[in-house]
Amino acid sequence: MALSILGYAAQAATTPLAAHRFERRDPRPDDVVIDILYCGVCHSDLHQARNEWHNSTYPMVPGHEIIGKISAVGAKVSKFKVGDMVGVGCMVDSCQHCASCNAGLEQYCVEGATWTYNDTDRHDRLPTFGGYSERIVVNDKFVVSISDKLDPKSAAPLLCAGITTWSPLRHWKIGKGSKVAVIGLGGLGHMGLKFAKAMGADVTLFTRSAGKEEEARRLGADHVVLSTDPKQMAALAGHFDFILDTVPNQHDLNPYLLTLKLDGVHCLVGQLQPIDPPVQAGVVILGRRSVTGSAIGGIAETQEMLDFCAEHGISCDIEMIDIQQIDQAYERMLKSDVRYRFVIDIASLKKAA
Amino acid sequence: MALSILGYAAQAATTPLAAHRFERRDPRPDDVVIDILYCGVCHSDLHQARNEWHNSTYPMVPGHEIIGKISAVGAKVSKFKVGDMVGVGCMVDSCQHCASCNAGLEQYCVEGATWTYNDTDRHDRLPTFGGYSERIVVNDKFVVSISDKLDPKSAAPLLCAGITTWSPLRHWKIGKGSKVAVIGLGGLGHMGLKFAKAMGADVTLFTRSAGKEEEARRLGADHVVLSTDPKQMAALAGHFDFILDTVPNQHDLNPYLLTLKLDGVHCLVGQLQPIDPPVQAGVVILGRRSVTGSAIGGIAETQEMLDFCAEHGISCDIEMIDIQQIDQAYERMLKSDVRYRFVIDIASLKKAA
Repeated sequence: MALSILGYAAQAATTPLAAHRFERRDPRPDDVVIDILYCGVCHSDLHQARNEWHNSTYPMVPGHEIIGKISAVGAKVSKFKVGDMVGVGCMVDSCQHCASCNAGLEQYCVEGATWTYNDTDRHDRLPTFGGYSERIVVNDKFVVSISDKLDPKSAAPLLCAGITTWSPLRHWKIGKGSKVAVIGLGGLGHMGLKFAKAMGADVTLFTRSAGKEEEARRLGADHVVLSTDPKQMAALAGHFDFILDTVPNQHDLNPYLLTLKLDGVHCLVGQLQPIDPPVQAGVVILGRRSVTGSAIGGIAETQEMLDFCAEHGISCDIEMIDIQQIDQAYERMLKSDVRYRFVIDIASLKKAA
Repeated sequence: MALSILGYAAQAATTPLAAHRFERRDPRPDDVVIDILYCGVCHSDLHQARNEWHNSTYPMVPGHEIIGKISAVGAKVSKFKVGDMVGVGCMVDSCQHCASCNAGLEQYCVEGATWTYNDTDRHDRLPTFGGYSERIVVNDKFVVSISDKLDPKSAAPLLCAGITTWSPLRHWKIGKGSKVAVIGLGGLGHMGLKFAKAMGADVTLFTRSAGKEEEARRLGADHVVLSTDPKQMAALAGHFDFILDTVPNQHDLNPYLLTLKLDGVHCLVGQLQPIDPPVQAGVVILGRRSVTGSAIGGIAETQEMLDFCAEHGISCDIEMIDIQQIDQAYERMLKSDVRYRFVIDIASLKKAA
């Protein structure tokens, strides 16, 4: 017994994504079945579809910014009912008993969270498949509610781009009086600007390309600084409490670190590679600065973020695409040619059926 | 008017240190004059005498672990009197009005602290000279009291090796229940073990050479781990709250970072070079670990540390030398052939007079 599902899959690292039929488990007592409406397109979909993290298994159905309506609930599910608008992010399960899980930080599960795709279910050992598909079956603990005050299309990327920037800003207690810089203006960066501003911080965008002033200010930046201009950078020595670094490639952290004040924090959220060029130990020591990083966020804080967005009218800036355009969308992402996140209209899947 | 002082100086990066007569300022109203009894030998003395930080000026009189007796006080000095046993560490002045100075963290003075040697006095623009000399003149705000419960010889290295390890352990709130690792067993590392243990932590020494078990336990380690053994390292995955990294050379942080638990902190105190091999961003992100550093400590916390040492019977393990042995001492330091800090008996200067 299993559900037959239509999706879009990568069959190998080098071939375009294409229609693909696969099976999902019959719902367990604590599962919900979600008819997917929209799915955001994350840079990590591209990394994994193309095996750039060297851990891909195929066929792979990417997608972890999922919005849909519940179409069935297991016998033990009390939190949700059929018809609820819900979201699923990067995780669909975790051990649920380690210190991290007990702290509501399932993304740091000591035994390893179960990722929404390109992973293995911890109970039946079957592969997980993501949101580029018509339906998903998920443990109810990993499902979040989407308020009817939120537009479900532009809420989709909140499940990854949103929580990835929200979680560190909250963890490091950004608020009124904080001086925050965001590096990079993409899917993550534009949400970083919106959140930092909504939290009351004085917000600066660091960018390497001129001409983003107006756009950055519209998104919440109070100041825009050209990070390639040594004069502008020197003027900010010892200025910031917190830097949210959303750059998806290797880059030199040292010029940014010097703009942190005593005990300032440089937080990486966009890349997993070696930090090269290397950080100067002298730069962190002489200012007790920290280089750290943060991974998405826990389920409880994802719900908190979604509720904050509903209350403050915050959402992602998106461009809708049909699933058939996914490979073009990847190419455009690589050129940063999107403001600021592609979202797939999953209804378009039927064209491929 | 100036005081003629006998000391030991480096005249160039490549020549041995030798007797050298120089001048110090007449005491200003807020100065004290200290007749130096003992001066610890810090690895940074060697770095600077040999211009390894590329900022040395000669002649240079090193030494910033200074213990002596006050022989004169300026008109405005009320905190000290003639005959008091006192100490001077790495700083002799700072701006005294920036946020760092106001927070008692003069080592992070925004305008730059005035270092005890190889620097320039911020008032008269004359060079500063350190503790390898018979007498020093210092602003009373940068002088600390030495309890008569402390042996003045073994107290000397507390002024740098002591406070450098004390300050981060206090800042990151190490105490009962904390799991702390110390990397390296030298002047800094042996104090790290003593302090972490006295603060109530469960203390591990990471070492690259076997056979240090007994010695490490004597100094306060509960556990000794061979960091070159992948099996021992893997067994400690996600274990520590805090790592105090006292290694004076470039080394790979990644194997140690993996032993930190969620939100764990790896704090560099021993080296100022680029962090190479580079830190893996994935290792900090997937655990919200921080790489940071800490520089010596402020004057108030130096006094707090000295009082703690007096109360708990803590001091440095030292080997006394005459000033004429300083170049041999440097060579032995390079081979880690000292347990654990050389201290110069400044009375030996008279042999050179």
